[in-house]
Amino acid sequence: MYKKEISKAVINRLPRYYRYLGDLLEKDVVRISSKELSEKMKVTASQIRQDLNNFGGFGQQGYGYNVEYLHSEIGKILGLEMKYNLIIVGAGNLGQALANYVDFERRGFLVTALFDISPDLIGTKIRNAVVRPSDELEEYIKANNVDIAAITVPKSRAVPLAVDLAKWGIKGIWNFAPTDLNLPKEVTVENVHLAESLMKLSYRLSTKNQTE
Amino acid sequence: MYKKEISKAVINRLPRYYRYLGDLLEKDVVRISSKELSEKMKVTASQIRQDLNNFGGFGQQGYGYNVEYLHSEIGKILGLEMKYNLIIVGAGNLGQALANYVDFERRGFLVTALFDISPDLIGTKIRNAVVRPSDELEEYIKANNVDIAAITVPKSRAVPLAVDLAKWGIKGIWNFAPTDLNLPKEVTVENVHLAESLMKLSYRLSTKNQTE
Repeated sequence: MYKKEISKAVINRLPRYYRYLGDLLEKDVVRISSKELSEKMKVTASQIRQDLNNFGGFGQQGYGYNVEYLHSEIGKILGLEMKYNLIIVGAGNLGQALANYVDFERRGFLVTALFDISPDLIGTKIRNAVVRPSDELEEYIKANNVDIAAITVPKSRAVPLAVDLAKWGIKGIWNFAPTDLNLPKEVTVENVHLAESLMKLSYRLSTKNQTE
Repeated sequence: MYKKEISKAVINRLPRYYRYLGDLLEKDVVRISSKELSEKMKVTASQIRQDLNNFGGFGQQGYGYNVEYLHSEIGKILGLEMKYNLIIVGAGNLGQALANYVDFERRGFLVTALFDISPDLIGTKIRNAVVRPSDELEEYIKANNVDIAAITVPKSRAVPLAVDLAKWGIKGIWNFAPTDLNLPKEVTVENVHLAESLMKLSYRLSTKNQTE
């Protein structure tokens, strides 16, 4: 309910809060003030208070935040109390890297299958998931409860694939192909554009060289 | 020079302009109006004009943009006319995926070496780069011209590794470990936090479910 009014900037910061609080939990920190959290995260204390006030606060004046409670509440806001079944289309290095990422599972994202067209990969097992032939995708999606599909195929194949995935009922797409997917608005797309990230780095490196 | 005043939001959009213009170039499009570009990119035409005016324009009234020229100029702004030597520390699936990414090379990012501690990986070749033992990192960096180091090692090893890389002279770090690196400000860090990206997706999926 309250989620509808939250700005994109705040939402972009929430996973970072979640990560920091998780680190504190691992170190058995029970309580933290917004000032301490602010120093760790390099965000102003007032920004932190403002961000968390979007969700009704969580802090007590002069007492700070209860780390475990705040961590769990932010997790709920992020939808992490739910379990998500994830498939990975494209079982190359990147797809395998995602399938091997233990942290995702710990946060409720379970890789149930990978798909590829390469006979060398089909039938192999990556952690707990088997690589299946891509032409079984439709059947698999219709027979199983799949929440998210990660797309780790080459750019040329990504656009028609995404259209098919949406048609077969996928509601969440995690796209690693360097292209935009124009999908119906009921499909949520999160892009990871690695080349663009690298260009931002080169921009900042070349700007620094000029001004030094 | 002009680069110093450009806002972060504009810079974040530049790689996307660059990608779109590259796609248009591949399709032999010579000229495009800000209106057409705006429809393709789902950004308002006035936003596009405003963004590009930061760098002195490039368009001509009633004539549109010359695709090749604009692509090349944005490339220069992004520092892509330079060549960057990149090493990858961590030759697991993710490191290998990055090393195999042909697009990076096309844009001037050359992977010159990978590093790992695993005897199974050391000595193997990924595209044109050999996997070397991690304890040769310092020597390699000091003997070679390395512009960027990608960090694809587990979280626990990332922080001390980054400190060492900075000490040995690395000026650009592309960090894939799910942790912030607190480095001296002369080191430019670009983070790719995959788990955070996945959390943003789950946030939007769970919010949609609630409001439907």
